[in-house]
Amino acid sequence: MADLTPLSDIGEFALIRRLQQKIEHRQPSTVLGIGDDAAIIAPAADHEVVVSTDLLVEGIHFDLMFCPLRHLGYKAVAVNVSDIAAMNAQPTQLVVALSTGPRFTVEAIEELYAGMRLACEAYGVDLVGGDTTSSRGGLTLAITALGQVPAGQAVRRSGGKPTDILCVSGDLGGAFLGLQVLEREKQAFLADPETQPELGNYEYVVQRQLKPEARLDIIHELRELGVTPTSMIDISDGLASEVMHLCAASGTGARLFSEFLPLANPTLEAAAEFNLDPITCALNGGEDYELLFTVPVADHAKIKNHPDITVIGHLTERDDAVNLITKGGQAVPLQAQGWTAF
Amino acid sequence: MADLTPLSDIGEFALIRRLQQKIEHRQPSTVLGIGDDAAIIAPAADHEVVVSTDLLVEGIHFDLMFCPLRHLGYKAVAVNVSDIAAMNAQPTQLVVALSTGPRFTVEAIEELYAGMRLACEAYGVDLVGGDTTSSRGGLTLAITALGQVPAGQAVRRSGGKPTDILCVSGDLGGAFLGLQVLEREKQAFLADPETQPELGNYEYVVQRQLKPEARLDIIHELRELGVTPTSMIDISDGLASEVMHLCAASGTGARLFSEFLPLANPTLEAAAEFNLDPITCALNGGEDYELLFTVPVADHAKIKNHPDITVIGHLTERDDAVNLITKGGQAVPLQAQGWTAF
Repeated sequence: MADLTPLSDIGEFALIRRLQQKIEHRQPSTVLGIGDDAAIIAPAADHEVVVSTDLLVEGIHFDLMFCPLRHLGYKAVAVNVSDIAAMNAQPTQLVVALSTGPRFTVEAIEELYAGMRLACEAYGVDLVGGDTTSSRGGLTLAITALGQVPAGQAVRRSGGKPTDILCVSGDLGGAFLGLQVLEREKQAFLADPETQPELGNYEYVVQRQLKPEARLDIIHELRELGVTPTSMIDISDGLASEVMHLCAASGTGARLFSEFLPLANPTLEAAAEFNLDPITCALNGGEDYELLFTVPVADHAKIKNHPDITVIGHLTERDDAVNLITKGGQAVPLQAQGWTAF
Repeated sequence: MADLTPLSDIGEFALIRRLQQKIEHRQPSTVLGIGDDAAIIAPAADHEVVVSTDLLVEGIHFDLMFCPLRHLGYKAVAVNVSDIAAMNAQPTQLVVALSTGPRFTVEAIEELYAGMRLACEAYGVDLVGGDTTSSRGGLTLAITALGQVPAGQAVRRSGGKPTDILCVSGDLGGAFLGLQVLEREKQAFLADPETQPELGNYEYVVQRQLKPEARLDIIHELRELGVTPTSMIDISDGLASEVMHLCAASGTGARLFSEFLPLANPTLEAAAEFNLDPITCALNGGEDYELLFTVPVADHAKIKNHPDITVIGHLTERDDAVNLITKGGQAVPLQAQGWTAF
């Protein structure tokens, strides 16, 4: 194993230089990247800029016992790109602010950046700036992503109409079950460090937790199908909470049908093993980073055969509130979970 | 005293709604602020966007024992605006990511935001987005600021020429001495909590530490004087380190004259009392958030009578390195201090 270098050996400026060397730019709009007081970006003519920020805190959002730093870097970027995609925009640049405690080495931070670079490559985003500082605690990562969208074409949460159909990309609940698997293996490891982690059967749900992908592909495919969502939001806190945000912003109610919710087989199997209701995992689990969006009924034909888009219900008048229709036909009012605990 | 509300009483979404209510927009380029997956900004035609991010960590960058939350909020915004000003750009929007531990109340976070709103008002910047989350440690604040500048008019660190003159705005070293005063009063308080802080004679330097201002005024005044700096950087880590950054980026050396360094009387008095060399405080103290910039010799006449701009030396060929010329005429090679300890 190569020698590890304490961060204190090289200092901030040298660390920045070391990280900066490996950065490549792909976006024509990036005029100047890391190394000045600010980055310079030249947005395309007649485009708007969208901007979103996310903070990831060790011990709250991730556990380095089972989240490799490279995966964390990838996920941190994907989560931000997901917010940009949810505006119907193309992500273009991001800046990264990072604070780390004394237990991190130069090599550890390079692993984190390696993951961020991989995600930047996957989504065509340029890392153009940042701030690196010490902390007395663990690792904190604040990423701000910028994107561009032709003027007037950004999709907000607020554009849903009472007759629009409600769609999600991909499948739900997997990331939450992946977390349950990882937590269980961690407890087994803490009880007996000789234990080998058993992730074999859970590859899919663990991957959903550790390396989620932003659904930029869906944005492009909708454009190719000639469909512009009337409203859109990414699913970070669980479907229930996001449907309620979307309805609150659009001034509508909604009905979603539990039997329509897209659940992957490995998710169903993991739910059975953990004795959890997969519908609840989809509604309140969070971290799936799929897109929830509405389209006019007239566009139903255009999307109904898309293999990765599922119609889960429709919007209604506001007075109808937000209801889950169970298999038995019962309407159960939804409650947002999200997180409430500080 | 009014009752204080634990953050856990209201949860993230309610906190965001509460903070959001008081936000006003002033920038015509702000299309959509807080409340969606991302904010939407419409940059002015033929303008570039600049973006900079800064992370402030409790126990590293600030001490809540002597830094009131309202001041911290103001300073956090000013520090970011300073980076935008250092690009010769107009700050326009910012996003704020915040993590707080369980010891913070809703009222404390509102104080922090009140300070940020004051600074937004002072600099004409819109707060358009954010993320609020819990932490197991203290307060961490990540601010990303956006600005706009007519295309091609951003000023980089790299444009200095070997004959340019080197200028600073305002005066230096005050913020560092303010910190010494505050640290001394903290120790006195810890030794005897009955002690009343004695800040009377140190109002100026304490203000420089707790409530620095971004020199956006200098950017506007240079424009009115018809002067475009060839290179510019803001002084956050101390003059020595910033001159070295500027020279490294411009491929030049520099000579600065110790007797020309602008030092305010209260700074000189505080330095004498603390038995510190005021020149060293200016060179290595940091947090003054003044602007360091170069202009062609031909522009000297335009700035020489400006009451708040001081010519401190000039750039040279790269081989001459960066030297401080002492009163006695001795050339002392400068060393960047910055911070090196993680």
